[in-house]
Amino acid sequence: MRFLPVSLQKLISELSKLPAIGSKSAERLAYHLINNPDFSKQLQDSISAATFKVKFCDQCYFVSEGTFCPLCQDDTRNSSELCIVEKPADLIAIEQAGVYTGYYHVLHSLWAPLKGQGTEKMHLDAMFERIKTKSVQEVILATGSTVEGEATALYISKLLSENNVKATRLAQGLPKGGELEYLDDVTLSRALSGRTEITQS
Amino acid sequence: MRFLPVSLQKLISELSKLPAIGSKSAERLAYHLINNPDFSKQLQDSISAATFKVKFCDQCYFVSEGTFCPLCQDDTRNSSELCIVEKPADLIAIEQAGVYTGYYHVLHSLWAPLKGQGTEKMHLDAMFERIKTKSVQEVILATGSTVEGEATALYISKLLSENNVKATRLAQGLPKGGELEYLDDVTLSRALSGRTEITQS
Repeated sequence: MRFLPVSLQKLISELSKLPAIGSKSAERLAYHLINNPDFSKQLQDSISAATFKVKFCDQCYFVSEGTFCPLCQDDTRNSSELCIVEKPADLIAIEQAGVYTGYYHVLHSLWAPLKGQGTEKMHLDAMFERIKTKSVQEVILATGSTVEGEATALYISKLLSENNVKATRLAQGLPKGGELEYLDDVTLSRALSGRTEITQS
Repeated sequence: MRFLPVSLQKLISELSKLPAIGSKSAERLAYHLINNPDFSKQLQDSISAATFKVKFCDQCYFVSEGTFCPLCQDDTRNSSELCIVEKPADLIAIEQAGVYTGYYHVLHSLWAPLKGQGTEKMHLDAMFERIKTKSVQEVILATGSTVEGEATALYISKLLSENNVKATRLAQGLPKGGELEYLDDVTLSRALSGRTEITQS
């Protein structure tokens, strides 16, 4: 690397700090950037605008340019349901599915004591405040089915039960298009134990 | 996506234009950037500095902050050899191998007529000028073993032979640690046809 210009070395080193970008990818990105100065300028402007403008909604902590996000400002949604997700991208995924009409709370973190991640970033106080003032009837714990996602759901469900709030968890089972022979044991056993009766309508 | 702040949508769209970054990766990078404003600032500064400072060496077209790169300025190198590579990263790879002591010429492009890539970006005139003035004895064609790498090597070797300059190509054969049973047919046949005599020393 000693023949590379210092500014290029610095750029490669910064790029390799991005998530899931290794040193080879960083090099590739750096050459792309120096070879396309107009695009680089646009990218810098976009980073600058987004980091300056994007804040978090004061109520649900979803990304927002204003004090409250468009979802929290929408009075037509079902205020008796609150869905807890880990990341903004998870909220988008649920919205795109188009079946949920309640409000959200974004944790921005999962409970992982071994990684030193506590619950302080989750704004749980604000969540409980909202549950009380808006008389939320059901809290849907929609964290992922990972060790940390499960632990976080369990942790929050315990707090909710202490406050007499109904907590539900996303169903676990066969994904659409999933074939039984390729499913892992845990998913299969959960699909079995969570089986539902077929009703003739 | 309609709930995402406009500036965030713009950032995701710009990031997804980067090579090998899909829309999911772009989202992930965007959230990382807005969650780490200090890092974002540093990254913007690095992009800005590199795109502003990094130019190409006037002689070999390797990346350089000055008119000539450190390699071209090094008088101790062997001026009878010139090694032709596609990208700056390829030059770095050869330098790191530590066995080549001549000079380089970086093409920044390969000959790919079907993709509309001609030879105009390769600065071949400057290369021939250099071959004449520095009395280069051998030009090593070190483009990759892809269809376009081979085509480019063939194209340049033809021009070189018309100018009575010796052209050589990197050897092709077993990679270090390569096992025969896993090698593809082309590599194996090239390793066979390029076999060398074992001399007892």
